[in-house]
Amino acid sequence: MPVYNAPIRDMKFLMHEMLDASQLQQYERFSEVDKDLMDAILEESGKFAQEVLTPLNVVGDHEGCTRNDDGSVSVPTGFPEAFKTMAENGWTSLGHDPEYGGQGLPGIVGIAAGEMQSSANMAFAMYPGLTNGAIKAISIGGSDEQKQTYLPKMITCEWTGTMNLTEPHCGTDLGLLKTKAVPNGDGSYKISGQKIFISAGEHGMSDNIIHLVLARAEGAPEGVKGISLFIVPKFKLDAEGNPGEKNGVSCGSIEHKMGIHGNSTCVMNYDDAEGYMIGEENKGLRVMFVMMNRARLDVGMQGLSQSEVAYQNAVAYATERLQGRSLTGPKNEKGPADPLIVHPDVRRMLLETKAFNEGARALVFWSTLHEDLELVHPDEAFREKCDDYMGLLTPVIKGYITDKAVHTTVDCQQIFGGHGYVEEWGMSQFVRDTRIAAIYEGANGIQALDLVGRKLARKGGRALMSLSKEIDGFLAENGDNENIAEFITGLKEAKDQLNEGTMWLMQNGMGNPDNAGAGSVDYMHMMGLTMLSYMWAMMAVTAQKAIDEGTDDDFYANKLITGRYFVSRMLPMVGAHLAKLKTGAEPLMALDAAAF
Amino acid sequence: MPVYNAPIRDMKFLMHEMLDASQLQQYERFSEVDKDLMDAILEESGKFAQEVLTPLNVVGDHEGCTRNDDGSVSVPTGFPEAFKTMAENGWTSLGHDPEYGGQGLPGIVGIAAGEMQSSANMAFAMYPGLTNGAIKAISIGGSDEQKQTYLPKMITCEWTGTMNLTEPHCGTDLGLLKTKAVPNGDGSYKISGQKIFISAGEHGMSDNIIHLVLARAEGAPEGVKGISLFIVPKFKLDAEGNPGEKNGVSCGSIEHKMGIHGNSTCVMNYDDAEGYMIGEENKGLRVMFVMMNRARLDVGMQGLSQSEVAYQNAVAYATERLQGRSLTGPKNEKGPADPLIVHPDVRRMLLETKAFNEGARALVFWSTLHEDLELVHPDEAFREKCDDYMGLLTPVIKGYITDKAVHTTVDCQQIFGGHGYVEEWGMSQFVRDTRIAAIYEGANGIQALDLVGRKLARKGGRALMSLSKEIDGFLAENGDNENIAEFITGLKEAKDQLNEGTMWLMQNGMGNPDNAGAGSVDYMHMMGLTMLSYMWAMMAVTAQKAIDEGTDDDFYANKLITGRYFVSRMLPMVGAHLAKLKTGAEPLMALDAAAF
Repeated sequence: MPVYNAPIRDMKFLMHEMLDASQLQQYERFSEVDKDLMDAILEESGKFAQEVLTPLNVVGDHEGCTRNDDGSVSVPTGFPEAFKTMAENGWTSLGHDPEYGGQGLPGIVGIAAGEMQSSANMAFAMYPGLTNGAIKAISIGGSDEQKQTYLPKMITCEWTGTMNLTEPHCGTDLGLLKTKAVPNGDGSYKISGQKIFISAGEHGMSDNIIHLVLARAEGAPEGVKGISLFIVPKFKLDAEGNPGEKNGVSCGSIEHKMGIHGNSTCVMNYDDAEGYMIGEENKGLRVMFVMMNRARLDVGMQGLSQSEVAYQNAVAYATERLQGRSLTGPKNEKGPADPLIVHPDVRRMLLETKAFNEGARALVFWSTLHEDLELVHPDEAFREKCDDYMGLLTPVIKGYITDKAVHTTVDCQQIFGGHGYVEEWGMSQFVRDTRIAAIYEGANGIQALDLVGRKLARKGGRALMSLSKEIDGFLAENGDNENIAEFITGLKEAKDQLNEGTMWLMQNGMGNPDNAGAGSVDYMHMMGLTMLSYMWAMMAVTAQKAIDEGTDDDFYANKLITGRYFVSRMLPMVGAHLAKLKTGAEPLMALDAAAF
Repeated sequence: MPVYNAPIRDMKFLMHEMLDASQLQQYERFSEVDKDLMDAILEESGKFAQEVLTPLNVVGDHEGCTRNDDGSVSVPTGFPEAFKTMAENGWTSLGHDPEYGGQGLPGIVGIAAGEMQSSANMAFAMYPGLTNGAIKAISIGGSDEQKQTYLPKMITCEWTGTMNLTEPHCGTDLGLLKTKAVPNGDGSYKISGQKIFISAGEHGMSDNIIHLVLARAEGAPEGVKGISLFIVPKFKLDAEGNPGEKNGVSCGSIEHKMGIHGNSTCVMNYDDAEGYMIGEENKGLRVMFVMMNRARLDVGMQGLSQSEVAYQNAVAYATERLQGRSLTGPKNEKGPADPLIVHPDVRRMLLETKAFNEGARALVFWSTLHEDLELVHPDEAFREKCDDYMGLLTPVIKGYITDKAVHTTVDCQQIFGGHGYVEEWGMSQFVRDTRIAAIYEGANGIQALDLVGRKLARKGGRALMSLSKEIDGFLAENGDNENIAEFITGLKEAKDQLNEGTMWLMQNGMGNPDNAGAGSVDYMHMMGLTMLSYMWAMMAVTAQKAIDEGTDDDFYANKLITGRYFVSRMLPMVGAHLAKLKTGAEPLMALDAAAF
C-alpha cells in the first residue's frame, strides 16, 4: 500500500521563510490569517489527506466508477463517507467568499491543502476540485441571484459542480461546438446535446450537481463568438430552492480511462434540460476562460502532487530494498546487499524528482501569493504586476509542470523495477493518474501556444519585462553571496538563454507564425526551467541565511544540496531547448502531410 | 480500433538499399536467402501481423489472462487460434537451426518479422519471444541430448518456453536467489522455490511449457558463483519423449500489470519439481547472460515496435481530426476546421517519433546484420569486430530505444488529447505496453551500468575504437557530399561530444566508480543518439544517391526531410547529456540517504 506523508516542513519553509505569507495579514481581508492559523490548517489538512484519503486511493483505482441501469453512478467504496467528512470539516470552503459561507482564506493556504489532498487521492480530490471551478465561474459571471442560489450549497459541497465543454467532435476548438440552447420565454433555456469527458459528471455524493454547460443559443453566430454558458442543475430547484424535479440531463456512460478511475468521467446527455444563462449571451467563453486560468494553476499543482507522492514511495523503496552493492564497496556489509539508494543512478532519478518537486512547489506557492496580493495590495501598479505574472506563468505552470511530472513519475516507477509495473505497489497508478494532467484543461501544446501566441506579447510584453526586472534586481542584490554562487550564475545564464529565445521568437514569429508554434513547447520548458531556477535561487538565499545564522537543522543544508542538483543537472536543458527552438518551423513543416 | 500497416517499404530500403543484406547470400549458410525470399517473408509476415494479430491486441488488453481454480490459465479470446496459425505457418522457426527443424534464415529477417508481430500485438508476440529465448539458452548450454529432446518441439512452438530468474526479494541482484535444486541421484534435480514476473508462465496454447529456471544446487557457494540453470518441463516427458506426468510446477497467481495484459505473467511455484541441469553446475548465469544479450536486442525492438504503431495511429488521427486552424491561415477552407497535422507542435511530436523510429530501426537492422555476419564472415578480425559491436551496442539498443519509446508513445498519445486518455482509441495501451520494455531484461539503469562499467572498457576499449574508426572512415568518404552536409556535420559533432564523454568517464570513473555510475544513463543516451546520427547519415547517403540517380519516388526526399528533423532537433540533446555527465557524482552523492 503506497504511503504519503504531507510535506508540511517544506510548505512551512516556503510560506514563512521564503515568501513571508504572513504579510497578507496586514490587509483587512486577511487580517485574521496569522502564521499559527496557516500552520494549523496545513497540519490538519495533511492529517486528513494521509489518514482519510490515502487509504482510498488504491481502492478508487481498483474499483473505478459504475453506471447502474437506472443511470445513477456508484463511486468507489469509502468515497461517500470521506466526501462527507471532508465537507463537514470545512475542507471545501477554505478559499471561498465569506459572503456565501466560505472561510475567505488566502489562495496559498488553499493550494497547499489542495496539493496534499491531490497527492493522497487525485481522483477523489477532483470532485471538490471541479466544484471549485464551477463556483469560480458562477462567482465571475453569475447574477447576484445565481450566486445566492448556488454558491452557499456548493461551497459546502452539499451540491457539487461540473464543467461541460468537450463534445465528441471538439475539445480544443470550442468554436465547433453544437450543443444548443433554445429560450423557453421565461428566461430559462432548453439545453440539448452531448458532452464527453465530464469529470464528476454523475455520482450520489451530493444532493445536487450543478453542471456548467457551454452551448450555442438559438440564432447565435457560428464559431467562438456564439457560445454562451449555462447553469444546468441535475435536479431543478423547487420554490424553496431545494432540489426537486429531475432535469433532462443524464449520464450516458462512464469513460474507461488510463487512470483517475475513482473519478466518474461521464458522457453527459442533455435532452431539453432546463438551463439558466450565466452572464451575457455569446460571452460564455470569457467567463470560462477566467475560470480556466485558475483551474490550470490547479492542474499544475496536480502534476506536482503526483510527482511528490511517487517520489515519497520511491524513496521508501530505495531505502528498504536490498539489491546489489555500491560501486565503491559495500555500505551494508552485514546485510545480504546494499539498499538501492547507494546507486548513483537511483539517486539521479530521485534527485531529479525531488529538485523538481521542491522547485515546482515554490513556483506554485509564489504564484498563488501573487494572486492573493493582487486582491489586497494598495498599489495599483503592484496589482497589475501580479495580474501580468499570473497571465504569463499560468500556461507555464500547467504545461511545464505536468509534462515534467509525467517523466518524474515514470522515473519513480522505474526505481521499483518489475514491482513498479505490477499494480500491487501503486506506482503504475501514479503514472496513469498523472498522465491526464498533461492533457486536460487545455493540452500542453495549447498551453505553449497560449504562452507564445498571447501571453508573451500581451500589453507590449510587459509581463516578461517586469519579471526580468525583478530577477535582475534579485541577481544584483545577491550577486556577491559567494556561498550560493552557482545558483546566481545558473539563474543568470538561464535568464540570458530565455531572453535569447524570446528575441528569436519576436524576430521570427511575427513574419511566420509557424516559427512561434514550432518553438512553443521548447520555450514553455525554457521558461519553466528558468522560473524554477529563480525559485531555487530564492530558496538558496533563504537557506543560506538560516545557515549563516547558525541553524542546527539539516533541512537548510539539504535544501542547498538539492538545489545544486537542479543547477548542475537540470538547468543544462535550457540550452538544449534553445537550440531546438532556434531551428524554427522548417524542419517541422517541410514534410508533406501525406508523407507522414 | 487502432490500425497497423507493416512498414515494408522502410524495411526494404534498409535491408536492400542501405545495408545490402543480400551480401549474406555469398556465404554457404545463407546461400538460399536472396532478395526475393527476404521480400516475400517481409510481406507475408506483415500480412499476418496486420490481419491476424492486430485485431487481437485490444482484445488481449481488455480481457487479460485468468488463472482458473484448477491452476490452469486462460488467455484472451482468439489468442489460441492465432497461436496455432502462427506456428503452422512457420513464423516461429525463421531464424532457428535447420538441424532442429528451423529455417536457418538470417537474424535480420527474423527481427523484421518480430518487429511487425510486436507492433501488431506485443503481448501475443511475447509467447513465441520467450520460447525463442529458451531455445537460445538450450542451444548455447544444453547437451546434445537436451537439444534433440527439446529444440524441435520448441522451434515449432508445439512446446513453449519461459525464463525464470526473478524471485520476490531479488531481480537485478541474482546473487541473492534462493530457489534450490537437490540432486535426485539419477542426474535430475528436485527444484523448489518461487519465481515471480514469469512471462508466458502458464497457458494452454502449447502441449508443454519448458521452464528454464535459475536455482542454487545443494551445497553451491553463495552469491552469483553458485547459480545453475535447469530445464523444468510443465509435463515430464514419457519414454517416447511426449508430455506425460504433471511436474511439480504450478502457477500460483497472475500478476496484475500496467500493460501487456494479454501475456500471462505468472507467479510460478516450484515444489520438488523435476529439473535437468543445463551445462555445468554453478555456471548457469553464463548461459543466461549470452541468451539475455540476444533478448535485449529484441526488447529494444519491442520499444521500436510500439513507437511505430503509436506513430501510425497518431498520424491517422492528426490527418483526420479537424480542430482549430493553421497559424498561417486556413488549409481546409471548406471544412469546419483544419486537420491537426497543420499545427507545428503536432508535427513536432510526430516527427520526433518518426525520426526516432526510422533511426532506431536502422540501428536494430544494422546491428543484427553484424550478428549475422559474425556467423559467416571468413575474416576473423571482422567477426571479432561484429562481436565487439554487439557487446557494446546491445545495452544501448535496449536502454536508449526503450527509454525514448516511452516518451514517443506518450507524445503520440498526447496528439489525441482526451481521446488518448480513454482506452477506446488504444493509445493508452501502447504507452502501458511499451513501459515494460524499459524495465524487464535488466532495467535501463542496469543497461547503462553494463555499458560504462563493462562493455566500454572490455578488451582495452576495442569496440568503441573500431566503431570510431568506422565512423571516421564514413565521414572521410562522404565529407564532400554537399547535399547531405548537415548529416555529416551533425555526426562529426555528436561523435566528438561522445568522445569527450568517454574521456571524462575514463579520467574520472576509475578513481571514483560513482562518477561512472552517475553519468551512465546520460552516456547511454549520448551513444544512442550518436549511433542514430550515424544511421541517419548512412540513410541520407543512400537516399541522396537515389535522388542523384533521378528517382521519381518521393520516399527518398522524404527520408532526407525526416533525417534533417533528427539532426536539427534531436541531436542537440547530445550536448545536454554531456553537460550533465560532466557534473559527476558529487551532485548525486552529497545528500545523506536519510535526507531524501
